[in-house]
Amino acid sequence: MRILGIDPGSRFTGYGIIEVQGDSSICVVHGVIKTGDGEFPERLGIIFSGIRKLIEDYHPGQAAVESVFVSRNPNSALKLGQARGAAICAVVEQGLTVSEYSPRSVKQAIVGRGSADKEQVKHMISMLLHVKEALAEDAADALAVALCHHHTQQTVQRMRVLRGGDSINDA
Amino acid sequence: MRILGIDPGSRFTGYGIIEVQGDSSICVVHGVIKTGDGEFPERLGIIFSGIRKLIEDYHPGQAAVESVFVSRNPNSALKLGQARGAAICAVVEQGLTVSEYSPRSVKQAIVGRGSADKEQVKHMISMLLHVKEALAEDAADALAVALCHHHTQQTVQRMRVLRGGDSINDA
Repeated sequence: MRILGIDPGSRFTGYGIIEVQGDSSICVVHGVIKTGDGEFPERLGIIFSGIRKLIEDYHPGQAAVESVFVSRNPNSALKLGQARGAAICAVVEQGLTVSEYSPRSVKQAIVGRGSADKEQVKHMISMLLHVKEALAEDAADALAVALCHHHTQQTVQRMRVLRGGDSINDA
Repeated sequence: MRILGIDPGSRFTGYGIIEVQGDSSICVVHGVIKTGDGEFPERLGIIFSGIRKLIEDYHPGQAAVESVFVSRNPNSALKLGQARGAAICAVVEQGLTVSEYSPRSVKQAIVGRGSADKEQVKHMISMLLHVKEALAEDAADALAVALCHHHTQQTVQRMRVLRGGDSINDA
């Protein structure tokens, strides 16, 4: 089971794919899509085709994106929105579902504290996913949201098992 | 020569394709992509595939989008940005260029006044493009930006001819 995590941005879009192997997970690939200095539509096209190529090459079954910290600046929000739109379209077009997690819940899932800083997230991600090489901040964030999605799903599944048990007791 | 105009929105995305025939233009198709009440990624997917299908069916050679009036609300800007990102990606992915025009310059091009209201734009569009049937507001805006793009290109071409003449006089 592979999960694609994306941290979209209009200049740098972090990505990371994890593979769940029994009780642990490994990092399959991580990196940053750099959109360069071209016209904005061209940059959106680079995000879109970059994410699509990742899905074609690595076949993740699910995707997760950090929900947005909305800045006070509507102009930044608009730019970020367009980048997110490009990334999410690429995922939806390939038939994958996308889950969203707030930055706080991602940090909570990875470090155990919603207020953890970026360095702590990066450190924990390298440890948990056995990443030996250097990890860009945006790529670490992308891997973090993928891992958060996996943890959340595990919890949901455990709850289902528990509920299943309850209903048997009820009967 | 066909031009696709798009007025993106997270709930309603207006579209219109015009065909330039000598000195006048006609409307080939117009309408509104309704994204419904589903999850946000799904709605972006509907915009993306809707625009892509239009391009596949009608083969426009160029596209134009209204540049955004940035609202004071960053949350609205984010939503609108994502819708724009989806629409623009669909265009770029099909190899078309996208031009952007401010709402003011669209109104200026169509009605002759940057402060014209929506009804006036709709009325002029129906007249100029010989649209007999009812025209949704978002579709009228989309046709307006397509026509604005055509007018702008004509002006640019005339200027090129003029400059060509100047340089011959200079020689």
